[in-house]
Amino acid sequence: MSLKAISAKDAASLDKDLMDMGGWSLDQLMELAGLSVSQAVWRIHPLSAGKNVLVVCGPGNNGGDGLVAARHLAQYGYNPSIYYPKQGKNELYTRLRTQLENLSIPFITDANFKTALGETSLLIDAIFGFSFGGPLRDPFPGIIAQIEASNVPVLSVDAPSSWDIATGPPGQGPGAGFMPAALISLSAPKPCVKFFSGRHFIGGRFLTPAIAEKYGLDLPKYPGIDQVMEVGVNADARF
Amino acid sequence: MSLKAISAKDAASLDKDLMDMGGWSLDQLMELAGLSVSQAVWRIHPLSAGKNVLVVCGPGNNGGDGLVAARHLAQYGYNPSIYYPKQGKNELYTRLRTQLENLSIPFITDANFKTALGETSLLIDAIFGFSFGGPLRDPFPGIIAQIEASNVPVLSVDAPSSWDIATGPPGQGPGAGFMPAALISLSAPKPCVKFFSGRHFIGGRFLTPAIAEKYGLDLPKYPGIDQVMEVGVNADARF
Repeated sequence: MSLKAISAKDAASLDKDLMDMGGWSLDQLMELAGLSVSQAVWRIHPLSAGKNVLVVCGPGNNGGDGLVAARHLAQYGYNPSIYYPKQGKNELYTRLRTQLENLSIPFITDANFKTALGETSLLIDAIFGFSFGGPLRDPFPGIIAQIEASNVPVLSVDAPSSWDIATGPPGQGPGAGFMPAALISLSAPKPCVKFFSGRHFIGGRFLTPAIAEKYGLDLPKYPGIDQVMEVGVNADARF
Repeated sequence: MSLKAISAKDAASLDKDLMDMGGWSLDQLMELAGLSVSQAVWRIHPLSAGKNVLVVCGPGNNGGDGLVAARHLAQYGYNPSIYYPKQGKNELYTRLRTQLENLSIPFITDANFKTALGETSLLIDAIFGFSFGGPLRDPFPGIIAQIEASNVPVLSVDAPSSWDIATGPPGQGPGAGFMPAALISLSAPKPCVKFFSGRHFIGGRFLTPAIAEKYGLDLPKYPGIDQVMEVGVNADARF
């Protein structure tokens, strides 16, 4: 199965439509996006595969999706920890952080990132999503390089962080060899998905037929009550 | 299995704690509450049992939970319709209504309620929740009486509407003989659950151990990634 991709520009416009005209709040969209990420984790990395999940969050909405996912993972019985080196300014991020702290989910320090990377059985890359325009700014080049150099399986949210949304992995430097084991596209795949090999999921079960038509997208046929659907497995899939 | 009940007063305080100190927005709590309602519907009334679901929404947050549930039900393939005779003032309700209208979910008129009741295979009673203090005010006595007189199976959200949260069904008048086939308690059962016979679910998977301890509640052991759990089946269960 293959789903039509949406450009970064159209993805931004789609989110704006949902909020300006569709009645959605960012809280609601992020809740369902993060929930779908947590359900993808359940598929690729059940509790029996290891409870430690390191969620690396960027400063924007992609990071927020990661924070929501971490909360659901804790409810499922995982032991998530968060690395959030540059917290964004939206008050929603502060509230999501409070929710996690009330579940005793640890936020690790810069100094502990390397250790946490060695102790986790799964990493969620919620650093950058469709609005990433590059280049990577500090401290993210070093973080991406460390993730890339590790053997930890990675689930990327919306796009592998450091990749250009249209043209894929950078030609050199951090991220040039970054290939997450799994990817969950939110609402619709981004064009860079064509450079991705691994297990591919779609999440964010909130599109309407009218929005899908406006942007020329496929409405994913989610089975049953699932908030996530696997749309393809590449031969290189490492899960 | 039996879960400890929470009084109406404590339930209000718990919601306030979640929002004032816990970092939660009403949008988030209602999203997860409504999602759990939709998952209960999936359990008791799969698509094969009939796609028409009439959601009767009251003017407060219980009605909002019903609106969210209806949106998810539409995504699952049901044909929900909404009867919303007294829309509340919170702007969230207006946004939830817009979300439903954008999915072409019909809002029926007062004049059409009786017909809709005859055509549905399931009714969701999202009229009043734990904050109901009685007595029923127009138009709800007539609506409850019609639901009570019908043969449509009902799933009540948080409490059977018209019931006193502490003392259960009224001694006489509309609601005196109202016994929904199923009930989904949100966060924790309300004391009136002891007067209920039918299938009983718990939903709202967002409590923290600290909040559960503060209010003397059990933390439900939701299985897997489920947002809802069945906690008991009475011999009279009609599903």
